[in-house]
Parts: sequence; C-alpha cells; structure tokens
Amino acid sequence: MDDKAQITEESVIIDGEKLSPEEAVFLLEKGRLKLKGMEREVFLSKVSSTNPDFIIRYMVYTDLKERGYAVKPGRVFFWLYPRGARAGDKPAKYIIIIRRESDSIPVKELDRLINSARNMRKELILAIVDDESDVTYYVVGEARLEGSHHEEEDETPIASCSVAGDRVLVHDRATVERLHKNMYGKLMGDRLVLSLIETAYLLQHGACTGGRDIEQFLEYAASKTRDFKAKFDVYCDLRAKGLILKTGFKFGSHFRVYTASQQKHSSFLVYVVPPDYIFATHELARAVRLAHGVKKRMVFAYNDTNHRIRYIDIGRKKL
Amino acid sequence: MDDKAQITEESVIIDGEKLSPEEAVFLLEKGRLKLKGMEREVFLSKVSSTNPDFIIRYMVYTDLKERGYAVKPGRVFFWLYPRGARAGDKPAKYIIIIRRESDSIPVKELDRLINSARNMRKELILAIVDDESDVTYYVVGEARLEGSHHEEEDETPIASCSVAGDRVLVHDRATVERLHKNMYGKLMGDRLVLSLIETAYLLQHGACTGGRDIEQFLEYAASKTRDFKAKFDVYCDLRAKGLILKTGFKFGSHFRVYTASQQKHSSFLVYVVPPDYIFATHELARAVRLAHGVKKRMVFAYNDTNHRIRYIDIGRKKL
Repeated sequence: MDDKAQITEESVIIDGEKLSPEEAVFLLEKGRLKLKGMEREVFLSKVSSTNPDFIIRYMVYTDLKERGYAVKPGRVFFWLYPRGARAGDKPAKYIIIIRRESDSIPVKELDRLINSARNMRKELILAIVDDESDVTYYVVGEARLEGSHHEEEDETPIASCSVAGDRVLVHDRATVERLHKNMYGKLMGDRLVLSLIETAYLLQHGACTGGRDIEQFLEYAASKTRDFKAKFDVYCDLRAKGLILKTGFKFGSHFRVYTASQQKHSSFLVYVVPPDYIFATHELARAVRLAHGVKKRMVFAYNDTNHRIRYIDIGRKKL
Repeated sequence: MDDKAQITEESVIIDGEKLSPEEAVFLLEKGRLKLKGMEREVFLSKVSSTNPDFIIRYMVYTDLKERGYAVKPGRVFFWLYPRGARAGDKPAKYIIIIRRESDSIPVKELDRLINSARNMRKELILAIVDDESDVTYYVVGEARLEGSHHEEEDETPIASCSVAGDRVLVHDRATVERLHKNMYGKLMGDRLVLSLIETAYLLQHGACTGGRDIEQFLEYAASKTRDFKAKFDVYCDLRAKGLILKTGFKFGSHFRVYTASQQKHSSFLVYVVPPDYIFATHELARAVRLAHGVKKRMVFAYNDTNHRIRYIDIGRKKL
C-alpha cells in the first residue's frame, strides 16, 4: 500500500486529510485529487475490496453529486443536504438508505427506519440501485390517513338477506337503497351484493342480521377467504378514521380509499401485508409506479406486535 | 322443493327443459321465465346453496350476456362464442376460467390450462371477480418471444477488469467500447459497469476473463444475489432467441426485453418465478396493469420440471 493513502472501510486518509472512500474516489476520478504512486484502478480496487457495498454506495454518491447535492456518506445512512446548501451550512434534510435491486426489505425494518428518521427529524429516502446501475429514490414515511366520512348509525336490521358463498345478497328495497347510498356493495338487478368484509362491518355495527351473530360470521368469512382477519382489521381501522374503502383489485391492491363520500377518485391504495413480510424490491417498484400513474399514494399496512396497525407510505422521490 | 323445478349443482330442469343454473336465474331475473309456486329469492337461495361458486359464476355470466355475447356455462369452463354468434352456430372461440379476487393461482395450474386451451384450439381467458363484483378479463397464453439481435462472437479476452461486490468493472477502453455498443452495462466515467448476469453470460461466451472460470464465477454470483441461477437461465435462454435484456426494475420486473438492437422501447417485461410459485390475484393485476400502461407485454417465466423454461403471457382482455 502507498504510504500516502491509508484505506479502511470507513475512511481514506490522503496526505493527512480524512475523506470518506466515496469522496476520495469521486475526487480522484474528477482529477481534483492526485495520488502519488498508485493507479486509479488499483486505488478503486483496494477501496472496493474493503467493503462489498462500496460500488453501490459510490453510484448513489456520484448520482447525487451530479444532481448538484451536498451529500455526506455515513456508515449506515447518507446525509443529504437541501439543494444548493453545503454540508454543514444547514442541517441535513434527508437520510438515505441504500439497497440493491437484488435485495429484499422486511416491512418491520422499513418501519424501524421511519422511526429513526423521525427521531432525527429527517425524511427517509430509500435509494435502490438497479442492475443497470441506475438509482431510483423513494420517500418512505408514515401514511397520514384521515377522512371526513361519518355515517349516521342506523341499527335497523336488514329484513331479508342471504349468504351465497363469499357474497351476501340483500333483498329488501329499503336496505338496498340505504346501503347503496352509503357506498356499500354493488347493485345486481334490484338486489345489493355485499362483500364479506362489508357484511362483517355492518354486522359489527348492528345494522344487519342475517340470522348469524358477528362471531359466527367472522369465522365463516375467515373460512372463505385468505387473510380475512388482517384485511378486516385494516378495513375497520380506516373506516373509523372517516375513510371509505372499496376494493383496489384493479390497481393490484386490497383497497382503494376515499377521504369523502362525494370524492370522484380515490386518494390511496392500501395493500395489507403480514407482520413478517419481506418486500422484494421489484414488488415495491411495481406498486409505487402503478399508484403514481393513477395519482394515488401507495400505502402498505401491517399489524405490529402491539396490535396497532401501521401504515407505510412509499412514493417516488424526484431529486 | 317445487315439483316443476329440479335443481342440481350442474343443471336446473324447469317444465322439462334443462338449463344451466346461470341461464335459469338469468332468465328468471329478466322475467323471461316464470316459476310457479316459488319466489325468485327462494330459487336463487336454493341454486346458490348447491354450489358455493354459483354467485361468482353468475356474475361472469350476466356480465358477458350484457355485453352481447353468447356464453355456455360448463362445469370447469365457460364457453364463449364470437360476438354476434349464437351458441352452436359457430364453435366457441374462448374458454373462460373464473376466479375470485381472494383466490390464488399456482403458475403450473395456469400453464396446464394454457395447454388444455391449445389442445381444444381455444384461447384461454381468466375472469377475476373482485370484491365489488366487477369482472376483469385476462387473456393468458404462451408468450412468443423472438428477436433479431445476433452478436458477432468475439472471444477477445477483456484485458483489464475487476470484481467489486455485485458488479464487474471493465477498465480497458477497447472492451468498454465493444461491449457498450452491444448494449452491455453502463458507463461510469471511462469504465463500464457490468451486472453479474451480464458478466456470467460474457464469460460463458468466452469473451471475458477476470482470472476466474465460469463455474467459479457462477458460484460467486449465486452467493451475492438471490435467485441468481433462475434469472441467469432465463437471461441465457432469451439471448439465444435473439433478444436483448436489460433490467426491468423500474417497471417492477426482472427484465425488460428488446427484440432488436436499435429498438427504442422494450417490448416485454419478464418476471421470473420459481416453479412452485402461487400468484396472488392482486400481484397479477398489478403487473399486467403496469405493463399495459407502458405498452409492453407482461411475461412470467419459470423453469418447469423438464428444465424447459416456460413463458406465460398475460394481458388485459377487453370484451
């Protein structure tokens, strides 16, 4: 090793100046730093052999530098400063975590990172470096889900309804009209067809009696559809926040969510995942891109260990 | 039970006439069939209690009838006739399988169904009934993947390259230019950055020597990225068909595929799944919608038990 450059995983000391490996390589490549007695290639090889993630980190570093940002590479996070500011002038605005296309990310890890960012009063950015060495940035945070839809409690039992597989058919006209007005179900001729989730919710709110009680019905629903409980919990939680939920199937999600009853287009897509869920980066990219294309926010929901439902909002970030 | 109507899972006999349950309910609802001594609701309840899938099947049936199609409900498939034709006038053009939003579908089952359809000389349509009772149709078939890109074999070894984590950096200018022209890798300053898959492919074709042989390198690559082998097999198979592959990460897929070297936009998105893969309907909806939005065909690839790679093309079907 050249006696003028000391290389470790976390820093490079050249002529007594301590730089991050990313900074050192960047300056060398740009010709703004000279290294005596060592070829650029050799230096790059040495640096990348101390840290298998170096090249990925370097790609994000150069990408951000070339976009005109000041950025400080740390061991876990990169610190990103507001555009135009120099590092130190102002506090960093974002912390960046870096993953590869071939990585996967547990939902709980994302959630922990959101908490870390909040504690540091920064926004969290996830940078994914794809196999072609392009970087895509996502902003990841807690979703703010609030609506203004509040239904009048109506405990009139449904006079006539019947369960048919994973649907419930409502036959009496008055109930059909009342429920349809409140955005439940779908008309089929002069009947209303409710989903199991809608029916369970109505049962829980005393409005519907199909000759079964809620516990019986929940058991039946769970026997009919995968992950009924997890989806139903999210449905109830979001209804309680004044939101209206319909299926998000056409957008590849469990729910599309309206914030008010007269809203023409839904605002959010919600996909429910189990607490031990691990995202493939491709799935994340696919869901966020689709939501973006239809001008909705992509939200992933899961039930954490304290039985609170957590909502993670992931969006494209243009830097 | 009324003595005029005999109801089984597969048929209803009314006044000596044998109908499918879907036809019988449809005609009753439209008032084109009368049933003595039995309310519509009671008849519907009886029919749906013989088959838990009845209501889903009925939704697809009515949707197709209302679109003006002749359709014959069978036990496994619905038979769909060309628009304007009556059942029997012409042979059916499509066979339809019906699933719910909450169902899941093994990739091998889809593939078996494609084979069945081909043997019957029909096109296969997958109808998914969502929780809101809307029906979305997908046409499912074998993907036709063929391209015109044929590289000149060039076995010149790469003079200088180095492995850095999950990338390989090519340093010598002649190779950088040659590979870049053939759409490999990405330029980073005066170097070319190759992915592990690209490098493995080049090694296998004798063009690149990084001091490692192909077996060693494949082992290294597999240790670095999940499912490397499955993706590499698909990569090689499609390159052999004259196609050019780049990452499809931005579209949530493993590869975007070009049919010729001067093509501006890729034609296909390819996502590689393991042979025991089970699709959630939401994932399928999401992938197909995204591909459709960027005017590409969505293709799922898997390695079947005979070590042939199977490509399944799934697209939206407007009926």
